[in-house]
Amino acid sequence: MASEFDLIARYFSPPTSHTLLAGGDDAALIGVGEGMELAVSTDMLVGGRHFLQDAEPYGVGYKSLAVNLSDIAAMGGIADYVILSLGIPPLLDSKDIDAFYRGFATLGRECGVALIGGDTNAADKLIVSVCVIGHALARPVTRRGARPGEDIYVTGKLGDSALGLKLLQRKRRGKPRLHAGALMMRHQRPTPRLSAGALLAKGDLATAMIDVSDGLVQDLGHICRASGVGATLYGDRLPLSAAYRALCGKAGLGPALSGGEDYELLFCARRRDRARIEKLPARAGVAITRIGLCTAGEPRVVILDASGKSLPLPVTGHDHFKV
Amino acid sequence: MASEFDLIARYFSPPTSHTLLAGGDDAALIGVGEGMELAVSTDMLVGGRHFLQDAEPYGVGYKSLAVNLSDIAAMGGIADYVILSLGIPPLLDSKDIDAFYRGFATLGRECGVALIGGDTNAADKLIVSVCVIGHALARPVTRRGARPGEDIYVTGKLGDSALGLKLLQRKRRGKPRLHAGALMMRHQRPTPRLSAGALLAKGDLATAMIDVSDGLVQDLGHICRASGVGATLYGDRLPLSAAYRALCGKAGLGPALSGGEDYELLFCARRRDRARIEKLPARAGVAITRIGLCTAGEPRVVILDASGKSLPLPVTGHDHFKV
Repeated sequence: MASEFDLIARYFSPPTSHTLLAGGDDAALIGVGEGMELAVSTDMLVGGRHFLQDAEPYGVGYKSLAVNLSDIAAMGGIADYVILSLGIPPLLDSKDIDAFYRGFATLGRECGVALIGGDTNAADKLIVSVCVIGHALARPVTRRGARPGEDIYVTGKLGDSALGLKLLQRKRRGKPRLHAGALMMRHQRPTPRLSAGALLAKGDLATAMIDVSDGLVQDLGHICRASGVGATLYGDRLPLSAAYRALCGKAGLGPALSGGEDYELLFCARRRDRARIEKLPARAGVAITRIGLCTAGEPRVVILDASGKSLPLPVTGHDHFKV
Repeated sequence: MASEFDLIARYFSPPTSHTLLAGGDDAALIGVGEGMELAVSTDMLVGGRHFLQDAEPYGVGYKSLAVNLSDIAAMGGIADYVILSLGIPPLLDSKDIDAFYRGFATLGRECGVALIGGDTNAADKLIVSVCVIGHALARPVTRRGARPGEDIYVTGKLGDSALGLKLLQRKRRGKPRLHAGALMMRHQRPTPRLSAGALLAKGDLATAMIDVSDGLVQDLGHICRASGVGATLYGDRLPLSAAYRALCGKAGLGPALSGGEDYELLFCARRRDRARIEKLPARAGVAITRIGLCTAGEPRVVILDASGKSLPLPVTGHDHFKV
């Protein structure tokens, strides 16, 4: 099956002169009027595939908006409006739908996003289709601007969401674990890094950016291919939470490298901007860790351990519900 | 179950100062930058509910875009961009998906709309979620501006789509009928009346407008309630096609009054603009028929026959697959 963007390229007229960046990045950019550039992003989530069938509706609502806002954050944009279309299965009662909307609205209010419309339908499974319209700051950040010699950074911690999912699946089989609550929350209510993204764009600090939805290595690979650079990751510098370390020990980098759904920002920046980036976390409200280096090599990712020895790449990227 | 807009009102902060018209009309209007107003509309279509399970994929693609463009037409807007999210069931092979995109893209090209992004997912049934972003002309047309004494008009013909659906359902039981082809096409490939809508807005001719998706009486009721007017329809003036007359005879106004999915424009206009409106069809490429009058009465619809006698209202509005 051809990918959606192959199909777009095949069937649609070339984007109009107002389309600055069509599909293929985290959000599409379109020029409207004087100096105004919109950032538009969409994601469809399907019950039983993107979230567990028995997931609590509040969390599903929260996360449905979060993953879409994360795409706008990854462009360094400001999220303004959201459109929400729902397919509602007979299993969900009005209390569930109410909880879904509360979760969606809570994050919407926190992020200053206005729900301007939508559509509801009966369906067999829960379908959540969200479209976010934001605007770009002076210089939106795509995946294409990384250059050899630049640093690679990531916000927050990696791998917690994947571990949280694993624990949620185990929980159903009745084995509660220490740290479980915090990790499950990272999976159920990821934080869109809107402030960090906007600060990086405003300061012209990030040369390329993406959000970590499919897993660190896979998403860094997207930047590598779009920018035409290689990437070396320092395995011992990956930011891991205390809960992650307690559960996975020192050796287990798997969930951090390929777990997916962290929705942290992964970006590249010039070496001369190191001092400015070190000052960002206080304003962005999230840690920022330097984890690697862009290289002039092939557009692929290499992982080194503390002694400089190459580590094997994780076999696959993120596959929903398989961590 | 509370309606989607009840839920929006309950859970979301009031629309920001940039939101000129949130959900509840055919499209939401949002102000962006200097004098630029966007019109945004969305519709989710679910296989087996919004189109027949065995509907040809080309037609499903075409119609999915058409019904969304129709919402922009009903605001008198210009459609610019479209975002398409698909849930694809295992039953559809790559040939079907290809045909779906061709149908979608054919209408997109005809209407000058650029596909700027989307999302594809595996799903149990075909899910099509479309979001159209357009812009409003000088004065976008809502449902709220009708005044007593104004005329009521509709573009094109009424009821053909409902008859076409009936024939499509019978066809499966093996009873082909005269006129069937043309009527089925009206159901499968409705024409979004973008030119007519834009001309009506540009000329400041329509005071209130909606597209006929749920059926004439039901959609006129939306204008009545939003504008605070009553409406009298002249039953003998409803524009019916030759195929409709041949199949339904003189007495059968049911499909024209409540059949739904015609996607024609229903609008109100001042009496002094009659001559200007009579000249529009040549430029708009579609017939425009005066079918009624706005009244100062209760916000409801009355239907009169040729002798001025009140006809019974159709019992229900449009219910998908029940005509």
